[in-house]
Amino acid sequence: MKRIGMLTSGGDCQALNAAMRGVVKTLFNSGEEIELYGFLEGYKGLIYGNYKMLESKDFSGVITKGGTILGSSRTPFKTITEPDENGLDKVEAMKHNYYKLNLDCMVILGGNGTHKTANLLKNEGLNIVTLPKTIDNDLYGTDMTFGFQSAVDIATNCIDCIHTTAASHGRVFIVEVMGHKVGWLTLNAGMASGADIILIPEIPYDINKIAEAIEKRKKRSSFTILAVAEGAISKEDAALSKKDYKKKLAESKYPSISYELADQIHELTGEDVRVTVPGHTQRGGSPCPYDRVFASRLGSEAGNLILKGEYGFMVGYKNREIVKVPLEDVAGKLKSIPADASIIKEAKLLGISFGD
Amino acid sequence: MKRIGMLTSGGDCQALNAAMRGVVKTLFNSGEEIELYGFLEGYKGLIYGNYKMLESKDFSGVITKGGTILGSSRTPFKTITEPDENGLDKVEAMKHNYYKLNLDCMVILGGNGTHKTANLLKNEGLNIVTLPKTIDNDLYGTDMTFGFQSAVDIATNCIDCIHTTAASHGRVFIVEVMGHKVGWLTLNAGMASGADIILIPEIPYDINKIAEAIEKRKKRSSFTILAVAEGAISKEDAALSKKDYKKKLAESKYPSISYELADQIHELTGEDVRVTVPGHTQRGGSPCPYDRVFASRLGSEAGNLILKGEYGFMVGYKNREIVKVPLEDVAGKLKSIPADASIIKEAKLLGISFGD
Amino acid sequence: MKRIGMLTSGGDCQALNAAMRGVVKTLFNSGEEIELYGFLEGYKGLIYGNYKMLESKDFSGVITKGGTILGSSRTPFKTITEPDENGLDKVEAMKHNYYKLNLDCMVILGGNGTHKTANLLKNEGLNIVTLPKTIDNDLYGTDMTFGFQSAVDIATNCIDCIHTTAASHGRVFIVEVMGHKVGWLTLNAGMASGADIILIPEIPYDINKIAEAIEKRKKRSSFTILAVAEGAISKEDAALSKKDYKKKLAESKYPSISYELADQIHELTGEDVRVTVPGHTQRGGSPCPYDRVFASRLGSEAGNLILKGEYGFMVGYKNREIVKVPLEDVAGKLKSIPADASIIKEAKLLGISFGD
Amino acid sequence: MKRIGMLTSGGDCQALNAAMRGVVKTLFNSGEEIELYGFLEGYKGLIYGNYKMLESKDFSGVITKGGTILGSSRTPFKTITEPDENGLDKVEAMKHNYYKLNLDCMVILGGNGTHKTANLLKNEGLNIVTLPKTIDNDLYGTDMTFGFQSAVDIATNCIDCIHTTAASHGRVFIVEVMGHKVGWLTLNAGMASGADIILIPEIPYDINKIAEAIEKRKKRSSFTILAVAEGAISKEDAALSKKDYKKKLAESKYPSISYELADQIHELTGEDVRVTVPGHTQRGGSPCPYDRVFASRLGSEAGNLILKGEYGFMVGYKNREIVKVPLEDVAGKLKSIPADASIIKEAKLLGISFGD
Repeated sequence: MKRIGMLTSGGDCQALNAAMRGVVKTLFNSGEEIELYGFLEGYKGLIYGNYKMLESKDFSGVITKGGTILGSSRTPFKTITEPDENGLDKVEAMKHNYYKLNLDCMVILGGNGTHKTANLLKNEGLNIVTLPKTIDNDLYGTDMTFGFQSAVDIATNCIDCIHTTAASHGRVFIVEVMGHKVGWLTLNAGMASGADIILIPEIPYDINKIAEAIEKRKKRSSFTILAVAEGAISKEDAALSKKDYKKKLAESKYPSISYELADQIHELTGEDVRVTVPGHTQRGGSPCPYDRVFASRLGSEAGNLILKGEYGFMVGYKNREIVKVPLEDVAGKLKSIPADASIIKEAKLLGISFGD
Repeated sequence: MKRIGMLTSGGDCQALNAAMRGVVKTLFNSGEEIELYGFLEGYKGLIYGNYKMLESKDFSGVITKGGTILGSSRTPFKTITEPDENGLDKVEAMKHNYYKLNLDCMVILGGNGTHKTANLLKNEGLNIVTLPKTIDNDLYGTDMTFGFQSAVDIATNCIDCIHTTAASHGRVFIVEVMGHKVGWLTLNAGMASGADIILIPEIPYDINKIAEAIEKRKKRSSFTILAVAEGAISKEDAALSKKDYKKKLAESKYPSISYELADQIHELTGEDVRVTVPGHTQRGGSPCPYDRVFASRLGSEAGNLILKGEYGFMVGYKNREIVKVPLEDVAGKLKSIPADASIIKEAKLLGISFGD
Repeated sequence: MKRIGMLTSGGDCQALNAAMRGVVKTLFNSGEEIELYGFLEGYKGLIYGNYKMLESKDFSGVITKGGTILGSSRTPFKTITEPDENGLDKVEAMKHNYYKLNLDCMVILGGNGTHKTANLLKNEGLNIVTLPKTIDNDLYGTDMTFGFQSAVDIATNCIDCIHTTAASHGRVFIVEVMGHKVGWLTLNAGMASGADIILIPEIPYDINKIAEAIEKRKKRSSFTILAVAEGAISKEDAALSKKDYKKKLAESKYPSISYELADQIHELTGEDVRVTVPGHTQRGGSPCPYDRVFASRLGSEAGNLILKGEYGFMVGYKNREIVKVPLEDVAGKLKSIPADASIIKEAKLLGISFGD
Repeated sequence: MKRIGMLTSGGDCQALNAAMRGVVKTLFNSGEEIELYGFLEGYKGLIYGNYKMLESKDFSGVITKGGTILGSSRTPFKTITEPDENGLDKVEAMKHNYYKLNLDCMVILGGNGTHKTANLLKNEGLNIVTLPKTIDNDLYGTDMTFGFQSAVDIATNCIDCIHTTAASHGRVFIVEVMGHKVGWLTLNAGMASGADIILIPEIPYDINKIAEAIEKRKKRSSFTILAVAEGAISKEDAALSKKDYKKKLAESKYPSISYELADQIHELTGEDVRVTVPGHTQRGGSPCPYDRVFASRLGSEAGNLILKGEYGFMVGYKNREIVKVPLEDVAGKLKSIPADASIIKEAKLLGISFGD
């Protein structure tokens, strides 16, 4: 008999349900007796002891379903280690519930923030297995995260739509793509949709180079499309201290970087610049087939680890193999696009400008 | 022999190419000798004499293609009747080019602004046939415009994506839908995606009623979705004079109505409210099959009118019949959702709140 | 207090759940006390008394979901009026269950076969309200049925896919489209995807005319696409008695009409002809936004009729109005494409051949 | 100055245009003077000297376009090494045209058959660079081929559609998926769509095991979905000599394996079994974003190899790196799913039956 807890934490994304289905089908198909506790709304459920018992059939038909049937929350507190507003020690509360329910293991699906907490719980002695969920693909220790490819599909689709209207009106268009502090999503959606200029956090831009690229493009074509990461940053801003940059952002009159860029480009080139921000749509909707297969595979391997009693790992993907990665190798790190990534070189060969 | 000019004017939308293909195939299949002049970038092309000769094969494969192969522009002048910056009388210039090329007819695809000018040109003696293009479906004299259903599909898809993330996080989400001064697009996308609250210009809202609807919904469900038309308006604002309302908008600190609503709802209910604005994506991308068939049909009937020498009409759609509508019955009017439309009654039966 | 039964019968299609949701939301929002009995697997459920109690929340989130949560069956007996294999009188059994549960009304969703039985039950004295479900759009008394537009989308998408491969290989391709004995689905999908030849039951074809159309097309283009209705029929076969035609079909070595056409076209033109049959995919998957809105509207009007105690009607759609149509005006009739339909004329203006 | 020839051969697939665009943009952006010859309809164009000069702008907008703008053909002869019907030595003819145009290199996009010929031409002394195109993903020397992920998306979409109808009617459904002699496409589409049984050539099936799996599934669910590769094979047939198997296939009364399976399953289980064959739709339509990025990257690396004068390679993908693979390591080999592939193990953990 195994008693397993499960929760999904952080911003939701596509294929969370598919990944959980993979874990659950593997556990219930194993022949072993299983008790499954689904904690509601992320770590909150574990802290306050809110859960529901789950069976295999609760995951019937969810492979195509976006979001998470357990609900999620970004931790609704400053940090997990500080007491909550009633003075409750949150880490102790989680341990308390874990031991009270006599759990063998917690399965935790989440991104970077989630993994910090997961590693903390591991260090506190809990048995943890995690799965790498994020549309940002910024988790260390895995080549790929689920949600990413689905978000690429949605963002690409947006830029495709903008493409026809940009071409018809001969305009400069900025599409602001999610991705937090890394450029994976923007780079892939930008390349997939034939964007002319791609701005990502890993390559700080020079606004004059962007203006030049637009002027150059104008000689051959009536329109220009920029795929801009929400975390894109200018060379000047990249040179600021973290604190000064935060302050600058807080004082900015622009809702996001794209609007500032639009003004600057207009000033330098005289072009009329439009901005589109698909926003949260990028993390919603049915997962793409790639993510469904990928998440199912990771999930089944996580189930398998649990059956073998191997704890303390994130199930990841390296060089086309499913691997187990010690949680301490994941937590607190960020996977950016390396400066020497061949995809950057290839994008430049295709004529894409990074504004550098 | 017929000499035909053609132009697409105003914001582009889906199925413009499909509609032109319908006209062109009908003309070239007729056996009659045809010379086809495609004016570039809307009325600008007719004013400045920029055109290219078109053949049937230029429209091969365009039925699935978004945008317009002729380019478009919103009239880049204050009004068409005032001289341009060089003192050129624009109406005279259009007449000049029309007669110089010895045209038998101009085919003009556009929305409300476009039809005002088309009617003016008709009154000046030109032979005109028009086609009703707009995602807003606000053209008078026709039950349907092409672009509308494609935009409904895109906006619905956006709200579907938001649905999974709203449900997972238990949040209030506003999706701002296009539609200019009417609510057709928002109403249909909202109903199709199961939105809980739909705000449209035709039904001014009371912010307290919206807050009540959210509170009521909260008792049964963790999340609420609002589909808000870009032209939605409160009862107070609707009572203002047009001038005062314009002034208020100009002075508003909010980029659009949805952001103001988000703040107001937060204040009244304490809910964390997120806003997504799909924007121009709603007018881009490949037309949906409905629009392709519809635009093709309208286009072929326009071609047929030309072959019969019947001018001065918009080809529209009434009670499931393709009809010809005198241009003077279209120009300068707006087709809003009638107060007694049965679709409003049905939406209310389904439990949708309009904030009224 | 109202006691309502509901069932879905015949081949499933998109938006059945959306339509039921419309009925159910309207009933439960009305303030009246409602008991809702969902009979399983179509009329079988009513005959054998298999049902489950339904509440409003059972229809939460189903607007995007294909199929029917009640299950369906084509009547698994020769006719509804003959006793079943155990000698049970099926009509009596249905009446028995209706009266035993003290129902006020049965809501029945289905196509042509379903409506025959619904009308029979009405004539037996039961209170019936029906909704027009079919991808074929062949129900009399309504301009439109739900499922139709979703099926058009899927069939169009298939032909779009075939288009790129046909063009690349310079081939003749036949795509066989559903639609039973009428051509609505094929005609719309064919026009939407730019098919060159469209064959529908309403216009019997002459194989030599098809060959001619292919030869003519070959002069301008390397490939030809035929959208062929599963019910397409040659002039010779259309002249046969129904009995002789059935016999001929039964003896045919071809799995369907498209394969016979492929052989005949190859013989007459020497062209290599490929056949694709998307089949049941056309009735599956998530309903398109058009169908979701349409089915919701019909459903809410059906709920409204029930609340007012108006029985014996199908809720249909005529000239853009939701209407109630007496069941006896629907049952046993077929809505074909009229010979003088303007859409046929328009298709011919576009250069589409019907092989006639 | 570089003179480059290019051709696409074999069955077309998604992202051929995207891949060519990658090559062409890289070449024309390099600053080097480029002359580009596009041979039409595969090797036929090179044999008979049919080509058109191409420029960078010919590839504008093609990244989203399915098929190939150069056209393709399966070699329309028994083998490339035998003379054509007029006695023309085809290999000599290709060499003749290559040298006559003074080409520096041929870029050849194709699958297994294409690579045999490409390697032959390399051995004849021509400079060749190839790109791995096939929806089957069966090319040796690369982890991935373009077209594959797009085909997975389409096949998955089909099974998703069948899912709702199978569930509504409680039926057994077979969807026959392409993939030639390997199971990559079927395995991925089957896993993505939650198929219950997946039959692939690499794992010959036992019909009794399939019947058992259906019976077992029936206890928990009313329906069963089988994803069956077009190359699926029973254990008995796998034991036959190649010649005997071919003979058996030729004499079979079934159009494809799925129909035979349907009859066998019906006989063993009494279930009503339906078959859907999406066929050529799987290789058509717009490439998915994954394929667009992937093909663009491969294309730009191919362009780069040419600029560096490195010939005789296929540009492939190994362990997430773009690599160059000597043509002789690719030609004549087949990449099947290895018996010990972890994805097979994972699929079994999920409860999927392979009928073995």
